[in-house]
Amino acid sequence: MNAPHPAAQLRQQLYRDMEPLHLTPLWEVLHALVPRQPASPCVPALWRYEEVRPFLMRAGDAITAEEAVRRVLILENPALRGQSAVTQSLYAGLQLILPGEVAPSHRHTQSALRFIVEGAGAYTAVDGERTTMHPGDFIITPSWTWHDHGHEGNDPVVWLDGLDIPMVRFLDAGFAENDTRRSQVVTRAEGTSLARWGHNMAPVRHEKPFGATSPIFSYPYERSRQALEQLERDAAVDEWDGVKLRYVNPQTGGSPMPTMATFMQKLPAGFAGKPWRQTDGALYSVVEGSGEVTIESAAGAWRFAFGPRDHFVVPSWHTARLSSQPGCVLFSFSDRPVHQALGLHHEERLS
Amino acid sequence: MNAPHPAAQLRQQLYRDMEPLHLTPLWEVLHALVPRQPASPCVPALWRYEEVRPFLMRAGDAITAEEAVRRVLILENPALRGQSAVTQSLYAGLQLILPGEVAPSHRHTQSALRFIVEGAGAYTAVDGERTTMHPGDFIITPSWTWHDHGHEGNDPVVWLDGLDIPMVRFLDAGFAENDTRRSQVVTRAEGTSLARWGHNMAPVRHEKPFGATSPIFSYPYERSRQALEQLERDAAVDEWDGVKLRYVNPQTGGSPMPTMATFMQKLPAGFAGKPWRQTDGALYSVVEGSGEVTIESAAGAWRFAFGPRDHFVVPSWHTARLSSQPGCVLFSFSDRPVHQALGLHHEERLS
Amino acid sequence: MNAPHPAAQLRQQLYRDMEPLHLTPLWEVLHALVPRQPASPCVPALWRYEEVRPFLMRAGDAITAEEAVRRVLILENPALRGQSAVTQSLYAGLQLILPGEVAPSHRHTQSALRFIVEGAGAYTAVDGERTTMHPGDFIITPSWTWHDHGHEGNDPVVWLDGLDIPMVRFLDAGFAENDTRRSQVVTRAEGTSLARWGHNMAPVRHEKPFGATSPIFSYPYERSRQALEQLERDAAVDEWDGVKLRYVNPQTGGSPMPTMATFMQKLPAGFAGKPWRQTDGALYSVVEGSGEVTIESAAGAWRFAFGPRDHFVVPSWHTARLSSQPGCVLFSFSDRPVHQALGLHHEERLS
Amino acid sequence: MNAPHPAAQLRQQLYRDMEPLHLTPLWEVLHALVPRQPASPCVPALWRYEEVRPFLMRAGDAITAEEAVRRVLILENPALRGQSAVTQSLYAGLQLILPGEVAPSHRHTQSALRFIVEGAGAYTAVDGERTTMHPGDFIITPSWTWHDHGHEGNDPVVWLDGLDIPMVRFLDAGFAENDTRRSQVVTRAEGTSLARWGHNMAPVRHEKPFGATSPIFSYPYERSRQALEQLERDAAVDEWDGVKLRYVNPQTGGSPMPTMATFMQKLPAGFAGKPWRQTDGALYSVVEGSGEVTIESAAGAWRFAFGPRDHFVVPSWHTARLSSQPGCVLFSFSDRPVHQALGLHHEERLS
Repeated sequence: MNAPHPAAQLRQQLYRDMEPLHLTPLWEVLHALVPRQPASPCVPALWRYEEVRPFLMRAGDAITAEEAVRRVLILENPALRGQSAVTQSLYAGLQLILPGEVAPSHRHTQSALRFIVEGAGAYTAVDGERTTMHPGDFIITPSWTWHDHGHEGNDPVVWLDGLDIPMVRFLDAGFAENDTRRSQVVTRAEGTSLARWGHNMAPVRHEKPFGATSPIFSYPYERSRQALEQLERDAAVDEWDGVKLRYVNPQTGGSPMPTMATFMQKLPAGFAGKPWRQTDGALYSVVEGSGEVTIESAAGAWRFAFGPRDHFVVPSWHTARLSSQPGCVLFSFSDRPVHQALGLHHEERLS
Repeated sequence: MNAPHPAAQLRQQLYRDMEPLHLTPLWEVLHALVPRQPASPCVPALWRYEEVRPFLMRAGDAITAEEAVRRVLILENPALRGQSAVTQSLYAGLQLILPGEVAPSHRHTQSALRFIVEGAGAYTAVDGERTTMHPGDFIITPSWTWHDHGHEGNDPVVWLDGLDIPMVRFLDAGFAENDTRRSQVVTRAEGTSLARWGHNMAPVRHEKPFGATSPIFSYPYERSRQALEQLERDAAVDEWDGVKLRYVNPQTGGSPMPTMATFMQKLPAGFAGKPWRQTDGALYSVVEGSGEVTIESAAGAWRFAFGPRDHFVVPSWHTARLSSQPGCVLFSFSDRPVHQALGLHHEERLS
Repeated sequence: MNAPHPAAQLRQQLYRDMEPLHLTPLWEVLHALVPRQPASPCVPALWRYEEVRPFLMRAGDAITAEEAVRRVLILENPALRGQSAVTQSLYAGLQLILPGEVAPSHRHTQSALRFIVEGAGAYTAVDGERTTMHPGDFIITPSWTWHDHGHEGNDPVVWLDGLDIPMVRFLDAGFAENDTRRSQVVTRAEGTSLARWGHNMAPVRHEKPFGATSPIFSYPYERSRQALEQLERDAAVDEWDGVKLRYVNPQTGGSPMPTMATFMQKLPAGFAGKPWRQTDGALYSVVEGSGEVTIESAAGAWRFAFGPRDHFVVPSWHTARLSSQPGCVLFSFSDRPVHQALGLHHEERLS
Repeated sequence: MNAPHPAAQLRQQLYRDMEPLHLTPLWEVLHALVPRQPASPCVPALWRYEEVRPFLMRAGDAITAEEAVRRVLILENPALRGQSAVTQSLYAGLQLILPGEVAPSHRHTQSALRFIVEGAGAYTAVDGERTTMHPGDFIITPSWTWHDHGHEGNDPVVWLDGLDIPMVRFLDAGFAENDTRRSQVVTRAEGTSLARWGHNMAPVRHEKPFGATSPIFSYPYERSRQALEQLERDAAVDEWDGVKLRYVNPQTGGSPMPTMATFMQKLPAGFAGKPWRQTDGALYSVVEGSGEVTIESAAGAWRFAFGPRDHFVVPSWHTARLSSQPGCVLFSFSDRPVHQALGLHHEERLS
């Protein structure tokens, strides 16, 4: 057995000696710190709604919305168990509210999106205005706004929650407060925000009720679908995305929230998309129809068949491809605005 | 008769001597150059549609759209005759197109808006996409885009043209070009632009087809009116403006064109508004209903009763007040974005 | 002699009949309103300092600074006599202040620049801070800031005033106010603004003391010249501009004032520049050295030899070319930010 | 002993059953995910230069710059050992380069700052331009620019490296590439970038050589110190910060890099500052003088005396207070621009 190399000995001694000072040598970890390309710790995953729904209903038996504050099953990335994260920066969960329940009012600096998956008759209230939920609607709870949810209809309502919880935790910037009231007082008629900002018009004076977040907090599915259908009929279908639009903050043209972008796309019948990869990992919610996604990285390959209300995650810099025989509609969200604001967004469209 | 004052003599001699060098003394004109407050050379004026329309029809007999290129009667500010200007910076006119006519394709750096006043079945085409005109629609021809108009319906169509012609002339920045084709080729289905950008969504990739101008070039009246009606029902009516919204470029949240802002407002039945004044002079087009506007300045006072399709101008820093017994809808436009971009916009709401 | 054409008759009758309603036919003036390219009414002109200076000194005898408020000889464009304008949108003048004089405090919405031409020891005070003037310094009086000038030195001081007076007049947006004090109270040490914002650093909290105008209100010649010299030594000299920099608002990277851009350029010895044209007309002030400018348009050709302290104007869309045997330094200003903000700036570099 | 509560049993069974589906109940972790206020896992720490320097010199013996690529001792937050992070989002290290050495050329999407701590004669080259290092200089390596370091002087040179490595890792957005050349070719004279953009002037045409990062990549200490000294003499000293300026990207007025803000402040002799806290954690480098910092959180209290070249970290939402008997100069950096871009920056100034 050889004696250890003197330089190596010198270094090991150095490392030991300086350890108490919280010093560590860069050169031993440089390659991991500055990788050649992103190697996300996240993995692709699919949550089939027919498998998840029974657990949601059991959660409905196990705890009330009021006791839970928010009765949500978190979709955890299989490689990030225990972190309440579906990608490194994003949180996703499915929330159940039953007829007659209230999820009490609170506020926090984390931004939240709701995408309605099943049922009708529930509502969200944001800073004094309620909006009624319908499947396919995209609803925002802007950072630091009071919000509560309730349900005055007859059947269970389930929606997807998307939050920037891991991002805010990483930045050590989370604040929260509970309301003294169970439900907030309604001060504006339903639809006022959409009437003010949602018709390509705006109040004459430049109010920004929610700061950098969209003043529209409900984007009805009816409108989004109508736009996609008209474009499918008339315009060229993109070979990677089908017909895909991003939701917009009408005060800026940018993303609805500073931390999260949201998208809706329609794959025409028989669509077989080309592969792409990008630095922002995304969670998808299947609105209508069915299809297939294939995802590849150095670590492996995944193929998921999906149907209505299923959810799947495509991590950063994984190569993905979408196809759909009958055609389908997909909602998705990611942290792209953060990548773009920091000059870190990168995308490749492959052929 | 007194001898002239020696200092005055000295000065007069100086003025005469330096005149050939194109030098002139500031102190003789300082007060006019730097006034205490705006004293616009423009005056208020009203054009009653029932008086104007016969002349439009006579113009229809006197010249074809093709020969005229654009068959327009310019609304000239009575104090700016010969300048083709309704305020110092803006041009307004009423354009007539008859069934079967075409106003041939051209482009120019001047931005144009069309506000449809009477008739249906005409269209404007902008860079390959047509939009059909209905009364109350607000349509844009962005700077330097090819555009032509045509009419495939049965009755005369009249619209208001608003352009920044005097502004572009003042800046010496006008370019224009005639198309080699009479009408441009249609390359996109009608409604494509609205589907892409008009539903609080946008294409995923950041195209700006018209630069700083809105990519939506048609804002249907149906939508605008719907927003105003909902707000009238539900929200507080402003004591100066009634219910007033500005049209928005969905890519920025700013004005639809860099040089012109456009507005639509609804005065509820019995509205008796408070007076205001602002630095941007505005032209109003009455869409529905009737009412009264009173306008005052140091130079005088005006009171105009107005009805459907009438037009009136409120010059800069004139105090104006609107009222309406039956309620009414008004469209208006001004050069406010220029004032705002240059830090020169100023407004007072009086009581 | 032929009978008049019936259509022509019809039209003339129409024009006469509708004239009282302030209606005028677009088709008779369309070509003038929408020209093929800019045809500025301005003409090129040169003011030789040796010719102008004696008149400035005579003005010093004819009126005091206090009586004149501002003792300025306006450089009027020969084609715009009586309009106090050197281009359609800009005002230029040479201001004289004599030892011991004060030009009293006032404020106005018009923005002003001062470029020091001759003499030392005078100062400008802006909102409580004085700055001492040296030849070649570029100084700003932001819109609506109190300002006064004084002179505690020994020799006459002359500077170039550049203002957006015609622009503000055109927009009907001018307000002004006289101070109750002759000179304002000094509240900050000289150089405080430059120390706060002039070293590529800024106060931690985002103050904008002058809104959209640069918080630095004095740009010393020493620094500007040093930058130009280093670039002349080391970097490629531009074939059109020599070494040319624009002054910057350090809070935005944009122009120092919303309405005016300012530039300083150095032509190396033996520079023979290529021709260019652009939509913004510019006034030049010769700082050091001498040279020649040739200017052409459809209306004619001009050739001016210039030396220190001379001034000349290059109107919009006139083709200009600079050359200099011994080398020279030029300051200039134009309304380019307005053209850019409105999407109307256009430039051609010819060869 | 009681039987387990039936609801609790129901829940535990639910948790176990849904675990294989990567579902987890929000209500068990909600309080941790949405904390009342930030509870950073980081702790305050001080690195005394007299203790760290010997290890740097031993590293100089143990490995060459070329072998190490970058010979850096990472300052690890004591609570984040093994993560190469000084706060959750930022990396800090001290880099040593010895006379004659070269740290070879590479590039990465991570942004880097250098703050020179000791020695002279080394240089950094960025995209073809070298800048020589002097103590107190702040130097940038913009994202994705080629850069190498070298040393042509006589004594060891040490600088602080600040990078957004943890942030880019969290976003899964890191790319890197080694150069085929050891040192890059110099294509511009030293100082060209500073001459172009560093004097409150800029090239006429709007180049952005480094995208959202400052085109100045070296901010000399001489200038920064001069600004601080003038402000200390003349302006009010802030009760929390002394005299503090932030470094600025002259193209935007914002932070020099999208992910990191940098600051320099001078505490006058006898300064005893008031306490503050903010969401962005910061690393400080002591440039001159000495002083004391006290830091408090719910978890404890720390008091560090510091002298020249010492480094200390103030984590998010820890209450900190600075004092200095002799006066001192401090450089610091944090991830504040990220907090601000995402609407998450929060600050409290206590008394």
